[in-house]
Amino acid sequence: MSQPRYELYYHPGIPGRLEHVRLLLEASGTPYTEIARDQKDGYSTVQKICMGKAPESVDGNPPMFAPPALRVTNGGSGNGKSLMISQTPNILAYLGEKTGMDGGEEMKWWVQQVALTALDLNNEVHNSHHPVSIGAFYEQQREEALRNAKDVREMRFPKYFGYFERMLEWNKEARQGKYLVGKGLTYADTTVWQVLDGCFFAFPREMEVRRKEFPGMLGEFYEGVKSAKGLKEYLASERRLPYSMGIFRHYPELDRQ
Amino acid sequence: MSQPRYELYYHPGIPGRLEHVRLLLEASGTPYTEIARDQKDGYSTVQKICMGKAPESVDGNPPMFAPPALRVTNGGSGNGKSLMISQTPNILAYLGEKTGMDGGEEMKWWVQQVALTALDLNNEVHNSHHPVSIGAFYEQQREEALRNAKDVREMRFPKYFGYFERMLEWNKEARQGKYLVGKGLTYADTTVWQVLDGCFFAFPREMEVRRKEFPGMLGEFYEGVKSAKGLKEYLASERRLPYSMGIFRHYPELDRQ
Repeated sequence: MSQPRYELYYHPGIPGRLEHVRLLLEASGTPYTEIARDQKDGYSTVQKICMGKAPESVDGNPPMFAPPALRVTNGGSGNGKSLMISQTPNILAYLGEKTGMDGGEEMKWWVQQVALTALDLNNEVHNSHHPVSIGAFYEQQREEALRNAKDVREMRFPKYFGYFERMLEWNKEARQGKYLVGKGLTYADTTVWQVLDGCFFAFPREMEVRRKEFPGMLGEFYEGVKSAKGLKEYLASERRLPYSMGIFRHYPELDRQ
Repeated sequence: MSQPRYELYYHPGIPGRLEHVRLLLEASGTPYTEIARDQKDGYSTVQKICMGKAPESVDGNPPMFAPPALRVTNGGSGNGKSLMISQTPNILAYLGEKTGMDGGEEMKWWVQQVALTALDLNNEVHNSHHPVSIGAFYEQQREEALRNAKDVREMRFPKYFGYFERMLEWNKEARQGKYLVGKGLTYADTTVWQVLDGCFFAFPREMEVRRKEFPGMLGEFYEGVKSAKGLKEYLASERRLPYSMGIFRHYPELDRQ
């Protein structure tokens, strides 16, 4: 039996939502291909299958709503065809099961729960620079963004960070504040880490202050995941894309003044 | 072996996010208890365990971030203790697996994918009346809400409804436009249905126009799920709560003019 092959469908130039999937795969040492980055004209394939008004179905799989999507070309469906799925938390749950990054049968519901909560924060941060219209430019909603970003930084950050800190506290017997759920790295850790890392990029002043308030989460945990096996090498490689104008954007006026 | 017992933790007076869970359980004929509605002082229990700055852990389960949460009091964890999990899509996936409402091994990733997409629309509709601050009143962000709701109705509705319509088209050989994934009712159907139903309440004028544009989705599918076994009885019962000031709110000024 040949190994399943994982193809990722996403925009080529940003970490974006796919970064959560990349981190899971890199941390577990699982090979993957990115269609838009590794294939000639790959992005037109992504657009054809995952974007536009009537995307093409692939191999009898249902139509996609939006990128990211995962295609498993061997062993995906068991009937010789590929399996194609979308939605970030769904892809994480699928790959988590295949790679063991979901913490196994006993932990997987908690791992998914923490990852979904981190992805909610991810969405709230995205909304902070696009509060009134996803399709319009930031400049067209700058006033509203100033108000929303303040709300996210002042009200939502403490709520989320406090929760993650309590998860570390809850799990401390198992692993001394290094992991959120259980005794090893799971996609709960990589997903929370990615959102925190994006927040450090987008709101450096705010995060500097919060680091003192949440030293476990934003100190030991954050640094620990960064240097975990597989991730350290990845984060130093060219595969790791810089933040730019995606979910996490650095508009100094939205940061703590 | 006794049956697992499902306890739901949520606010007492609104359909809210828990409605997705209720529909899954009602459609599959699975008994459940709602702590805040069925127990004396139940809502203080919900608040103690799921809300506030430092919620209590139950039976060694991790702390909750926010309601809704599910507690499985028998057979949940296999070690005699209860299992407690939160996050709507996570609860749906767990109960989907236990009740068969996830379409089984072959379909479950697609079912989760569709449900997650419907829950994204759910969030966007919620944002439409609270675009700049989750914690502030609607009246404090009415101008922004007018702009956001227009965007949601004009740009996002066609995108989401078009996608659901394509899912029905994709699945039509299996079941003639009645279900989104596979040959029977899954939580993809109940979750999409609940969001559509909420939209009919919040934006009646807009939805009347869209019904002509998406007749499969907003006509046959919507009516079909409403009269499915288990759901028809539930929707006519007192257990079904009316919409009020939760996710779906009817502000006539936010509807199509």
